[in-house]
Amino acid sequence: MQTNDPALKSFIPTPPESHFPIQNLPFGVFSTAANPAPRVGVAIGDQVLDLAELSEAGLLTVGSDVFRQASLNPFIALGRQTWRSTRASISQLLQHDNLQLRDNQALRTKALVAQDQVTLHLPLEIPGYTDFYSSKEHATNVGSMFRDPANALLPNWLHIPIGYNGRASSVVVSGTPVQRPNGQLKLPDAEAPIFGACRKLDFELETGFIIGQPNALGEPIDIADAEQHIFGMVLLNDWSARDLQQWEYVPLGPFNSKSFATSISPWVVTMEALEPFRVASPVQQPEPLPYLRQSGNNGYDIALEVSLKTSDAAPAQTICRTNFKAMYWTMTQQLAHHTVSGCNTRIGDLMGSGTISGSTPDSYGSLLELTWNGKNPVTLADGSQRSFIQDGDQVEMTGWCQGDGYRVGFGSVSGKILPARSK
Amino acid sequence: MQTNDPALKSFIPTPPESHFPIQNLPFGVFSTAANPAPRVGVAIGDQVLDLAELSEAGLLTVGSDVFRQASLNPFIALGRQTWRSTRASISQLLQHDNLQLRDNQALRTKALVAQDQVTLHLPLEIPGYTDFYSSKEHATNVGSMFRDPANALLPNWLHIPIGYNGRASSVVVSGTPVQRPNGQLKLPDAEAPIFGACRKLDFELETGFIIGQPNALGEPIDIADAEQHIFGMVLLNDWSARDLQQWEYVPLGPFNSKSFATSISPWVVTMEALEPFRVASPVQQPEPLPYLRQSGNNGYDIALEVSLKTSDAAPAQTICRTNFKAMYWTMTQQLAHHTVSGCNTRIGDLMGSGTISGSTPDSYGSLLELTWNGKNPVTLADGSQRSFIQDGDQVEMTGWCQGDGYRVGFGSVSGKILPARSK
Repeated sequence: MQTNDPALKSFIPTPPESHFPIQNLPFGVFSTAANPAPRVGVAIGDQVLDLAELSEAGLLTVGSDVFRQASLNPFIALGRQTWRSTRASISQLLQHDNLQLRDNQALRTKALVAQDQVTLHLPLEIPGYTDFYSSKEHATNVGSMFRDPANALLPNWLHIPIGYNGRASSVVVSGTPVQRPNGQLKLPDAEAPIFGACRKLDFELETGFIIGQPNALGEPIDIADAEQHIFGMVLLNDWSARDLQQWEYVPLGPFNSKSFATSISPWVVTMEALEPFRVASPVQQPEPLPYLRQSGNNGYDIALEVSLKTSDAAPAQTICRTNFKAMYWTMTQQLAHHTVSGCNTRIGDLMGSGTISGSTPDSYGSLLELTWNGKNPVTLADGSQRSFIQDGDQVEMTGWCQGDGYRVGFGSVSGKILPARSK
Repeated sequence: MQTNDPALKSFIPTPPESHFPIQNLPFGVFSTAANPAPRVGVAIGDQVLDLAELSEAGLLTVGSDVFRQASLNPFIALGRQTWRSTRASISQLLQHDNLQLRDNQALRTKALVAQDQVTLHLPLEIPGYTDFYSSKEHATNVGSMFRDPANALLPNWLHIPIGYNGRASSVVVSGTPVQRPNGQLKLPDAEAPIFGACRKLDFELETGFIIGQPNALGEPIDIADAEQHIFGMVLLNDWSARDLQQWEYVPLGPFNSKSFATSISPWVVTMEALEPFRVASPVQQPEPLPYLRQSGNNGYDIALEVSLKTSDAAPAQTICRTNFKAMYWTMTQQLAHHTVSGCNTRIGDLMGSGTISGSTPDSYGSLLELTWNGKNPVTLADGSQRSFIQDGDQVEMTGWCQGDGYRVGFGSVSGKILPARSK
């Protein structure tokens, strides 16, 4: 039986709205109060399965030293066959009629921990972070606002899966508070810039994929092979200081406006788990250059939502609903392009999708677009308005693939904004 | 006696033109045929001093395990006081009248290796690579060529030490051959881009500084403290595919045009060794915002040269002579700006200066400028011409601080261009 077969059932109960049924089995890094050493686990229902314990019980072929680590990188380094065989073993062990774990109460006590009892850590050591810009709707919106609505897309956009290098050091795991950045701002009618706290703080709804199989310098990844280089996907919030960005980004791209924080979700959903949710990606016209051509279904049907909370006590209000399947450039095109120059990748490299915006105003993946650069503030249930993010606001993104009666989900990535540092 | 005192003499002979007198003592990572394990060494004259051997002989307080490593990072992690005290101990041991090493033939045999017998490795594990754009002459030249000679500098340039994130994975050590990249080019009169080998391959003459003391996320480095965060400097060649760059770089900056390779010199020259060569940096008008203001001498007088060889047999011909002291933005301003948003840095982070161009046409730090985008090819001694770099060409950069009768030098960074990969 395939690990993503909808008919699979686990002895761990997973209601239909759970993101973590047996069909998913995402990998992450967790610790507990009782054992603060970070280690590798898999989410199942409302539990975390401790892979080091499973290994020590002789139920996995991979040694427990690989799982007693603060990142997934050593496990990923074992290669694609091992990712797959380990996931298949875990799937077996969790099946409703498999007694090995189900009926071993001592092992269950050691190897299963309630998710609300764990701390989730950044799951990866991330040697490089690249961010793409692959939503046509997003690129069109930005171009309309800041350049020319009649020629919103730049000439290269339909030919190149445009990307840029981000700052890997400041990638943080969901739940990490984010300090509003200080920096240079140039006010609309001012002669010179001032220094101060960002006034146009924004989120960007993205996904990211993780390099599992690296390529050597000088050896591009062929698009036909690209998928085999991807370990899995996460949700990503590319926090953006729009005012800093507008002043700094010409000609070398965003820098301080993005480098203060990038948040990712703690669970890495494998490409195997996403396999049943492949869909056609948008038709590309003009046809891309040969190194970017591919056949088959290379998009993924991932429902995405962004919600905002104005305080710990306030309800989360959904302000964006969209879907990853609208992305113009695919992940495999991004990876083929990234490496076609000979650029090498490394295990754990994070590749952001770029802001995911749909075609309707409620499907835009940033406040910049949702409020059209602050012109049309979003009105919340309590009557307050938001043009951009205020101190104390919490932004949460979630995403899932909807199966028949189950979901393969990403959990969420959230972050609360702290006031800027006073200089 | 100070470790950079011009009066210091070593028992290892160092002629006046040597880059590595006792006043320098740069750190690097090397191996030998007899012992292929990379380890930390210091350059002295035409020798390499093996620090692991010195430590095992009881002559250094830092344990040999710190030096039996493939990068300087573990040593750097011990902190600034340890960098300084270790360098002071090495300086003592190498002095002409110190018998401990000089007269211990058994130890000399183990601890001193001829530089022409060693392989030099990438000296650092580089978690992040940032490249700045801090030469006013370079920014003006580029702006004149590609935008408007009357308004060559962009409005933000005099306010921000502009920088962008580079690709750390493809930083290589001097001597590593560099494959000409393939990518998308848009020919002047073409409707659509084509795929092919770069036709405008260029070098960029830069230096880079290395983070020795990291800062935490959310905690900017004050400009007054910035110098203490810097371990040392290297030479850097930011190889650039100008045709790929021109087509791809708007709006998010250079990507494939730079990410195929960045070469650095193998020896990291410490800030202590450079101390006697501090000079005033250019007057900044308008005055920068307070977080970028500093007093004292924050430039460094480093003579720089670029030479080109058209084949292994051809003589190296100098095509650029310039000096680092002309740089408008200082390293400490770059670092204060980089972190003012709260962005964290890590040990081993590499920060490139940006192309170092002087005010005269023979002092431009790239072929783009030297040939004015190919319009005025450089004529070499054998009568051949170069608008951009051809396959088989070797580019070598060197740099040194000129003392009274001695030099504190960087050695060189070189690379030979291999033909593009055929698809």
